[in-house]
Amino acid sequence: MNFVSSAEGLPTKILVELERKLESAVGDDPFISEACTPLLKGGKRLRPILFLISSRAGGSSSYEKLLPLAAAIELIHTASLVHDDILDASKVRRGVSTANAKYGAQVAVLIGDYLFAKAFEFVANGHYGDEVSAILSRLVKNLCIGEIKQDLSLFTIPTLGEYYERIALKTAIFLSSCCRLGALTAGLERSMIEALSSYGMSLGLAFQITDDLLDFFGDEALTGKKLGGDLKSGVITLPILRALGSEELRSIVTREGISDGEVERAIELVRASDALMYCRRRAEAHVEAARLVLPTMIDPTVSKVLEQAAAFIVDRSW
Amino acid sequence: MNFVSSAEGLPTKILVELERKLESAVGDDPFISEACTPLLKGGKRLRPILFLISSRAGGSSSYEKLLPLAAAIELIHTASLVHDDILDASKVRRGVSTANAKYGAQVAVLIGDYLFAKAFEFVANGHYGDEVSAILSRLVKNLCIGEIKQDLSLFTIPTLGEYYERIALKTAIFLSSCCRLGALTAGLERSMIEALSSYGMSLGLAFQITDDLLDFFGDEALTGKKLGGDLKSGVITLPILRALGSEELRSIVTREGISDGEVERAIELVRASDALMYCRRRAEAHVEAARLVLPTMIDPTVSKVLEQAAAFIVDRSW
Repeated sequence: MNFVSSAEGLPTKILVELERKLESAVGDDPFISEACTPLLKGGKRLRPILFLISSRAGGSSSYEKLLPLAAAIELIHTASLVHDDILDASKVRRGVSTANAKYGAQVAVLIGDYLFAKAFEFVANGHYGDEVSAILSRLVKNLCIGEIKQDLSLFTIPTLGEYYERIALKTAIFLSSCCRLGALTAGLERSMIEALSSYGMSLGLAFQITDDLLDFFGDEALTGKKLGGDLKSGVITLPILRALGSEELRSIVTREGISDGEVERAIELVRASDALMYCRRRAEAHVEAARLVLPTMIDPTVSKVLEQAAAFIVDRSW
Repeated sequence: MNFVSSAEGLPTKILVELERKLESAVGDDPFISEACTPLLKGGKRLRPILFLISSRAGGSSSYEKLLPLAAAIELIHTASLVHDDILDASKVRRGVSTANAKYGAQVAVLIGDYLFAKAFEFVANGHYGDEVSAILSRLVKNLCIGEIKQDLSLFTIPTLGEYYERIALKTAIFLSSCCRLGALTAGLERSMIEALSSYGMSLGLAFQITDDLLDFFGDEALTGKKLGGDLKSGVITLPILRALGSEELRSIVTREGISDGEVERAIELVRASDALMYCRRRAEAHVEAARLVLPTMIDPTVSKVLEQAAAFIVDRSW
């Protein structure tokens, strides 16, 4: 399931240790442990893996030192998913019941808060310095602003610029921060830190565009999500923007309370357009940009893994 | 409104600057600014003030240096209130509409997350060191666990021990941490840090017991809260525990969906018992404990302010 677990960039051992660290993160309290352990299972670990690979861009690095921060990154991601699932009223995520479905909204809010706090505790105890905490705080702030912008403009057609702003805040800045944190904690030069951040930003845009495509073209068995979920909840993404030549599609997606039949029809209309090709081309352009920015000076093994990661992100079917 | 604003312990200037710092905390984004500015107004500022006073226990200290952390403390408190109000479905807090009532639950979750993140950003940028971040993370974790325990045991009669555990997690550890942070950032000796933490813990217990009393005996015009709110939502507090000799009271408070008439009846029953005297005696005992622990070596002006603060906390009617 791990997107680069077969790549030579990371020893398997570190991924096993990451899982152990995540388990330990929720071991302080019996209820938290019971509630959070299933929530932490089954993620792709994209963010901590990007962080760990980036930390090797200057050569080898000490994984033990990096583990708490890698775990903190995944905890922040998980916390944000727990909070996302609350009003989406999502019942299932990563193949298990959401906190919301199991314990109700209020407890789900608190579980998410706990995971955020635990992440910052790992960071404090890992002694990474203030710049690391500041990057993490900013990324959470951006995540919140991105989600708020999305929630306040449901069923409204965004401009291309607004769409890009949203996916940058929601996803790309997070991935970019993971790369930045890796480079920073490895003590790389500023120019390499910036290059890796930029790689992460382009990668993140490609990742989110691909994610948005999967809502129309994905395999439900692989993604674990029902097709058309975004549009049903009013989130208007790039494939829809591309297919808006259809007035019928426009009238479906801008009206609250879309029926299941209308969701199917909207998917048909998007599929009948050139949205797939268009969005793939855009995603590939961002991947290409990500590749180009990879500085020639970084460790060639790492560079290769990062290139593979970028390619994988647009080709994935989950 | 500030509980020690008239005390000689703190110059007014610092409180004005705290307000300014809080305003600046939500200035990064227009929506966040609009949504959060009213939420941050009208608080008693008990927690940052305790922090600031404690920081003077060893003599004078540089307030400029302490302001970001003082603001971070109040941001964390406000974030937790925003999240609390979500499923309480509270409509009004501190005299203004809750985020929940104004923007819906999902956006309220994100606003709370934003405030938490901003708090940790202030801390990172204030360069207080990892112990400060770790204390704040732990206090948020304890807050979450306290609230979760409360939410999972609504309409259930706690033992006295369970009641105390809950108010420690929800309130007293927070107040204790404020004192600890003050002493720590002022560079005081370990023994003084522990003494001030212990003062804060006792103060916090007294504060929460008094708060729980106000739900039955408070002046709605002053507290801004309707009487009986806790019991209506299923939170069984010390005054109820004391009055449980009444079988009628027991049957009202352990049943979900308490009518307004039953709330009034329950308030009558608690008032007819000796709960007021009992709870006040307990609160006063904690205040006395708080006073006793104040080390003789701390600055006498500060010691006097802290004693006044403790006395004020049980005498307040809001």
